Amino acid sequence: MDEFALIRRYFDRGLTRAGQQTALLGIGDDAAVVEVPSGQQLAQSIDTLVAGRHFPETTAPRDIGFKSLAVNVSDLVAMAATPAWFLLSLTLPSADERFVKEFAEGLFQAAERFGISLVGGDTCRGPLSITIQASGLVERNHFLTRSGASVGDRIFVSGELGTAALGLAHLLGRVELDGHLREDCLRALNRPEPRIDLLPILREFASAAIDLSDGLASDLGHVLAASKVGARVDRDALPVTDWIRQRQAYDYALTGGDDYQILFTVESTLVDKMLKKTAALDADVTDIGEITAAGDYHLTHALQGEAMVTDMYQLRGFNHFIE
Amino acid sequence: MDEFALIRRYFDRGLTRAGQQTALLGIGDDAAVVEVPSGQQLAQSIDTLVAGRHFPETTAPRDIGFKSLAVNVSDLVAMAATPAWFLLSLTLPSADERFVKEFAEGLFQAAERFGISLVGGDTCRGPLSITIQASGLVERNHFLTRSGASVGDRIFVSGELGTAALGLAHLLGRVELDGHLREDCLRALNRPEPRIDLLPILREFASAAIDLSDGLASDLGHVLAASKVGARVDRDALPVTDWIRQRQAYDYALTGGDDYQILFTVESTLVDKMLKKTAALDADVTDIGEITAAGDYHLTHALQGEAMVTDMYQLRGFNHFIE
Repeated sequence: MDEFALIRRYFDRGLTRAGQQTALLGIGDDAAVVEVPSGQQLAQSIDTLVAGRHFPETTAPRDIGFKSLAVNVSDLVAMAATPAWFLLSLTLPSADERFVKEFAEGLFQAAERFGISLVGGDTCRGPLSITIQASGLVERNHFLTRSGASVGDRIFVSGELGTAALGLAHLLGRVELDGHLREDCLRALNRPEPRIDLLPILREFASAAIDLSDGLASDLGHVLAASKVGARVDRDALPVTDWIRQRQAYDYALTGGDDYQILFTVESTLVDKMLKKTAALDADVTDIGEITAAGDYHLTHALQGEAMVTDMYQLRGFNHFIE
Repeated sequence: MDEFALIRRYFDRGLTRAGQQTALLGIGDDAAVVEVPSGQQLAQSIDTLVAGRHFPETTAPRDIGFKSLAVNVSDLVAMAATPAWFLLSLTLPSADERFVKEFAEGLFQAAERFGISLVGGDTCRGPLSITIQASGLVERNHFLTRSGASVGDRIFVSGELGTAALGLAHLLGRVELDGHLREDCLRALNRPEPRIDLLPILREFASAAIDLSDGLASDLGHVLAASKVGARVDRDALPVTDWIRQRQAYDYALTGGDDYQILFTVESTLVDKMLKKTAALDADVTDIGEITAAGDYHLTHALQGEAMVTDMYQLRGFNHFIE
């Protein structure tokens, strides 16, 4: 089966939800054509996943499909943008129909779940890699950036950190996990859920936001650099699974990467109101620290009544290598 | 030098021309943010170039940078869209500063020339490949597709066909070329010029259009399938270099690929007016045949007074393999 036949068979499924109103021309021409509704702007992310780097070679094609889209949608959420359309460029070592079929199943499962439509793409031969460019809609000039954090803002993260990195460590034979914990960690690794549920919270309360893909230490560092501020993070407040807390293996959360949770900052006077709203939405967010003056970037924890302080600039980010 | 430092140094140059008005947030956040002017729609293309497949491994990094963008802009032109912004995902075997510096030079040379701005991207490690997603603006519902050709329309192509494929054949040691011809063929291969100059012609006169990337036989075939029509192409009318014509080596033009010229159809009553305008613009377009009824797809040429006919469905497309 050649390239065109593969595309027609597995990718040309017509438009899902969001796309039906605004995508005028989908797969099968030189380019897709979309219309941005009046009063809205377009956020555009792009991410490539390379086999053996961003996921182990043994990852199931369905999981690769799902995750490729999820990581891009997570970038859109960090901008406060509602997912709308995406383009896919799929590079495959061979025209492997089984791989394409299963990859497409995972991809479209994610697309349905996140309300985003495939509108175009490209396939070619080469070492396995997947590039997705996703676009989302945001009310004019109400997009979030990394640069809006101010001294005194509280720092929040969604979900649990380090769980996916722990799953990867398990797959690489570095730690042994069993039962539910193993399942949770592998699900976090292979089926990340971009936090679309947080969009109303981010739009109403966040001063800055970033998607956590390279690990908290590195990603919060980007917010600090862009906002020209510092931060104090309370290590014991980090939302981690018991396995990590019991072993004080906080590196999974700090430098592990692959979380695809959202870190965001909130002006301190808005925190109570925000927490009421997150409780009402049943959205899990955790206060992990405070924005401070530029130059300060420290992790604190209490040890036998003493305050221990670690320089977070010394913590290495993940940098997307499975080493 | 790490990923972030490389990006800052070579890619974060601010916005060029077109982007200054409409790109609100460029490189350095989770996503770019752009605004589509009122009354316009967005055409979005994506293309991946893999080393050893889309270009020989020995290609100069400057040429790789230039061509990666050119092939995407050519897709936009085929939609009648004016280039606006692009995102880049660059996968590199190592953080090779020389490669990145020269690649960026070629890329930005193309960006300036085509009036398109880099607004975001991703870099990662892996076998060398470049994915670009380019967006262009088109007046609402005035985009061109592959599906608008009607029986009786004349078929035009821009520029010269087969020249880039001949250049590749030379690089692969299959033919020997010298002097100006070699220069022309290598320039066509490494420095394709998307036909932005044709946008006014396409918008005023074309009924359907496609970018010629896989070879005329395959690409015109896509137009015929989408428009549910057939075609007769006059082999002797094909605009080819003398080397090809003298040797009757028309396969370079028919199945060679990598032309990045535009094929478009024009209603026969509009042809004279169009040709006056292309002459005024000094744009080289050639009438190569006629749209006929569905099912007919033939190449014709005269041989000693006899009409010779070849089934164009039998001609294989390039499919992007250097074999």
